[in-house]
Amino acid sequence: MTDTVSLDGGEIVIIDQTKLPGEAELIRLTEQEQIFKAIKTLQVRGAPAIGVTAAFGLYLAARGILSGLTEDAPLPEGFYVKLAAAKAYLASSRPTAVNLFWALDKMERAALALRGKTVGETLAALRAEADGIRDADVASSRAIGEYGLTLLRDGDGVLTHCNAGQLATVRYGTALAPIHVGRERGMNFKVFCDETRPLLQGARLSASELAADGVDVTVICDNMASQVMKNGWIQAVITGADRIAANGDSCNKIGTSGVAILARHYGIPFYIAAPLSTIDRSTARGADIPIEQRAPEEVSELWYERKMTPDGAKIYNPAFDYTEAELITAIITERGILRPPFDASIKAAFEGARE
Amino acid sequence: MTDTVSLDGGEIVIIDQTKLPGEAELIRLTEQEQIFKAIKTLQVRGAPAIGVTAAFGLYLAARGILSGLTEDAPLPEGFYVKLAAAKAYLASSRPTAVNLFWALDKMERAALALRGKTVGETLAALRAEADGIRDADVASSRAIGEYGLTLLRDGDGVLTHCNAGQLATVRYGTALAPIHVGRERGMNFKVFCDETRPLLQGARLSASELAADGVDVTVICDNMASQVMKNGWIQAVITGADRIAANGDSCNKIGTSGVAILARHYGIPFYIAAPLSTIDRSTARGADIPIEQRAPEEVSELWYERKMTPDGAKIYNPAFDYTEAELITAIITERGILRPPFDASIKAAFEGARE
Repeated sequence: MTDTVSLDGGEIVIIDQTKLPGEAELIRLTEQEQIFKAIKTLQVRGAPAIGVTAAFGLYLAARGILSGLTEDAPLPEGFYVKLAAAKAYLASSRPTAVNLFWALDKMERAALALRGKTVGETLAALRAEADGIRDADVASSRAIGEYGLTLLRDGDGVLTHCNAGQLATVRYGTALAPIHVGRERGMNFKVFCDETRPLLQGARLSASELAADGVDVTVICDNMASQVMKNGWIQAVITGADRIAANGDSCNKIGTSGVAILARHYGIPFYIAAPLSTIDRSTARGADIPIEQRAPEEVSELWYERKMTPDGAKIYNPAFDYTEAELITAIITERGILRPPFDASIKAAFEGARE
Repeated sequence: MTDTVSLDGGEIVIIDQTKLPGEAELIRLTEQEQIFKAIKTLQVRGAPAIGVTAAFGLYLAARGILSGLTEDAPLPEGFYVKLAAAKAYLASSRPTAVNLFWALDKMERAALALRGKTVGETLAALRAEADGIRDADVASSRAIGEYGLTLLRDGDGVLTHCNAGQLATVRYGTALAPIHVGRERGMNFKVFCDETRPLLQGARLSASELAADGVDVTVICDNMASQVMKNGWIQAVITGADRIAANGDSCNKIGTSGVAILARHYGIPFYIAAPLSTIDRSTARGADIPIEQRAPEEVSELWYERKMTPDGAKIYNPAFDYTEAELITAIITERGILRPPFDASIKAAFEGARE
């Protein structure tokens, strides 16, 4: 499978995920407005893939600001102000995705470390920084897959919500990384994908990448999760996260908290799989995470042949909810499996990551 | 609002609910195949409305069997066999709806009590029996509304799943009867309707009848119920039931058990509203109730402009689940509010009903 995000010269190449589950269509982004729109309209989505796209995007922004200058010219006055404006623009594309802010901060810091360098040196360093973010994502997804696999047995039924698969990263995925890695080893999981209304990332994306990988995959409506658990078909729930607070509260696609409550009721372990970059230690708890509200038409009209709610009815359409840490059995990261109490295990993981 | 089901001479008149939330379209059913199809394809749905439709349907079947005979002719040989065949045919339209079987049994018993009577007397008695089932439904919905209202306070937020509204009965509804009755008295509830995938009865039907009644109504995706509860917006959950076992386990639209588990988690009372005819004392517990499996296309294609799941993914589409009695705060019936332990309160209600 093609990488979800890559850089080809002056163009970002992404799989347009709004076109799935049909043919996988590659699109090329050159202008900042295209990159903003691709993130905003979910042509590229999933916290890690958004971070890599934004990093490549800020590299392209720097190229644009510096275009026409020779490689050995000094950085022009106003470069950092213009770069900060480009960063703020890209950061405003999705309000909840911490990887987006994290990747953009990392790129800006790399640029600021280059004061006094030439145009050529600056662009080379920014390109290397963005490539590094991409490479680290691939490595971390692979590691999450390896760690996650230690929690599963061959033949297990696994329920997932939304798409935290390879389509949400550059390769492998987070929540679905154990499935893909296990598949490489000839293991056969039975994966149940919540369709994940209103944007149907489970039905369209998770089911697509799992079916393409030869996994036994079943799509269910979100409201059927209780029944498949009651049937005894689910041995583990694994979802991704868009932002994890310092106490372990995990913000993810709307509906995740409900799945976690059901898993607790049925005695099924509930795992979050996410790279450490998803953990925002400056956010104390889930209730502090702003919840993006999206357009009501996503619920009433999107995908449909006709409007499915009557005039006169309001619509509430939050994009995320947060799952309280006490409902989470473990958080699977690229540095290992974090167990409760999460405030301590998260702190230890970050200290380990700084080694 | 027009009655959901009525009899006009030799025709059953129903609101075609597959056309909502657009214009309310009345259709007329004369042939047994039309009546079967109307129940099977959910043009008429909701346990009580199905029961009344089936009763009128069996009356029309008797008219068909006896057509061409004079009013004072004796019943022809084979009448009861043919009537039993018509009953079995209508009963096979939906496997889970106990009101369907209950209404058909009641009609057959009325017919069998008429052995030795004339054609005219038999048809008149069957018509009266069907009218009685209809009248009892209207009275019981009204009583459920009155009892249910004692559990709510003006301004309460109420979450409901699927449609157990006036569209599921002849008038008033069951789960939504307290809302409609309260509305008549100038009370203002804030009702949240789970859209109820895959058939969207909440978005299309509950939202339509509540908006038409001037109720403050908000549609949410099924996976948002946890979030609206966490927001503190819900003071009570009320749903209908398709079949209630002797121990109180309640079978209702897929997803109801999940909502009940969420309500328990958030400390919100969870009520089932249903007439006593929904209680099947010959079914010991929920696990004994057969769960209707419906076509996968309802999940992957219905309503959509294009198929929303990839080839290679399976689909699981159960129409119902059952909610364990221990998750149910009370069952609101036309004979009063039943509290746990339900085996005892159900027994007492039936003994009271026989008085």
